Amino acid sequence: MKVAVTGASGFIGRHVVRRLSLLPGVHVVAVSRRGAGAWLPEGVAHVAADMSAASEGAFEWLGRPDALIHLAWSGLPNYQSRHHFDTHLGEQYRFLEQLVKAGLSTLVCAGTCFEYGMQSGELDESLPTDPCNPYGFAKDALRRELEFLAADSQVRLTWARLFYMYGEGQAPGALYTQFMAAAGRGDAEFRMSGGEQLRDFLPVADVAQHLVALALGHAAHGIVNICSGRPTSVRSLVEGWRDSLGSPIELALGHFPYPSYEPMAFWGSNAKLIRLTREVADAS
Amino acid sequence: MKVAVTGASGFIGRHVVRRLSLLPGVHVVAVSRRGAGAWLPEGVAHVAADMSAASEGAFEWLGRPDALIHLAWSGLPNYQSRHHFDTHLGEQYRFLEQLVKAGLSTLVCAGTCFEYGMQSGELDESLPTDPCNPYGFAKDALRRELEFLAADSQVRLTWARLFYMYGEGQAPGALYTQFMAAAGRGDAEFRMSGGEQLRDFLPVADVAQHLVALALGHAAHGIVNICSGRPTSVRSLVEGWRDSLGSPIELALGHFPYPSYEPMAFWGSNAKLIRLTREVADAS
Repeated sequence: MKVAVTGASGFIGRHVVRRLSLLPGVHVVAVSRRGAGAWLPEGVAHVAADMSAASEGAFEWLGRPDALIHLAWSGLPNYQSRHHFDTHLGEQYRFLEQLVKAGLSTLVCAGTCFEYGMQSGELDESLPTDPCNPYGFAKDALRRELEFLAADSQVRLTWARLFYMYGEGQAPGALYTQFMAAAGRGDAEFRMSGGEQLRDFLPVADVAQHLVALALGHAAHGIVNICSGRPTSVRSLVEGWRDSLGSPIELALGHFPYPSYEPMAFWGSNAKLIRLTREVADAS
Repeated sequence: MKVAVTGASGFIGRHVVRRLSLLPGVHVVAVSRRGAGAWLPEGVAHVAADMSAASEGAFEWLGRPDALIHLAWSGLPNYQSRHHFDTHLGEQYRFLEQLVKAGLSTLVCAGTCFEYGMQSGELDESLPTDPCNPYGFAKDALRRELEFLAADSQVRLTWARLFYMYGEGQAPGALYTQFMAAAGRGDAEFRMSGGEQLRDFLPVADVAQHLVALALGHAAHGIVNICSGRPTSVRSLVEGWRDSLGSPIELALGHFPYPSYEPMAFWGSNAKLIRLTREVADAS
């Protein structure tokens, strides 16, 4: 079977492409704005494409894939920019609508825990969303638009609502990247927030594994939280990284304030993800 | 002061324009796709314009109004059509964003109780929305987009969330129009649903009065339910119309099934509307 991946050169995309490329019988098409580079595993097909310029025929130049894992999104991590909805939402919808009309049968699309907005505690997929920044709003709106489209068409839609993740290849500003750089330099201390805030973290390789399994399942799973199901403090997370390195670096807790635009404690319910993972394992 | 009204030739628009035209010191600009006709009160300025073709300079051809009551929306009452979001939402946002960037200071925009989705009972403005048809979704999305825009600009935004209304000039398919025609013809019976469903109804003239008051208030009121606050069965509503006519027409209750896409009982909280109305009365 053929699986296309948009945003293939991005943080998650690289892990997804790598994992797919190791599976026998899977033909991968990596789609990205930038050209192929060292990030592209040998033997993987590449298509350079910009969604905003996507003309008719996108399904053809993707090679008529059986499934699409759609990760592309522009302008991150600036969550507050209005471009997320005033231009990009429309581009995203038109691109995906075109593929569905041309015959795409399985679509796994990346969502975000920011769709939930300022809700605290354990968040499950049945909660009404209430996004409070333009990025979360635009993702939530795209999901609803695709749900209406799916109701009128043959496409099997899975909305993979991503929580926090970390790992190799993350953006320079990310906590993981910053910490690894500081520890690698042999810094005496690492400045961070109080670290008591509870979040839900997964290694990016696990996120990629879940996305691939959902795409290969060829079913309409609806919304699925991609998360650990475990509330974890940022402090514990960083201490875990430090322990894995055996680094003596001190954590300078409380150096930065807590962000006001996020709840102090929220994490995902992973009950649905676990159930789907079991079903896939039973079927194979 | 100058107040522009889009959708001016529509059901609500005609009542709003008429009411504004009676106020001393108010200069009204009626905007509609169709040309001026008998619906336009004498002496009221008219601009023929289609939002989808709106080029730069819309604020100028509206005559730089102090406030806009924005009622235009295309393709009603087909609530299920995807045009509401795949083309019209973008047109609406671009039109309004352009006006705000050009200096519009007060915007009263029509929303809908369908933004609440399948929630039952009394609905107040603080509830998270959860629209379940493309029309309700597109209105909800436009509201959120305008809220982000308002946070970054000077515009004072009021989102007038309209519930059910009835009155002279309503569409041929509307219950009110159908009933009045049947009673006028001297029909023996009027076929309708069971009539037990509870809704929230206002005469359209009252809706127009509220919209005008909100626009003249020149404040950012946020979301305001435009409703009676009273759950009323459809049966009682129609019986009231019959009594007012002194008509002997029989109600054939239960002829049509209840619609499955709406809750059996929902109505608006009008606490905020009452508070705002009092404030306006106290200020004048």
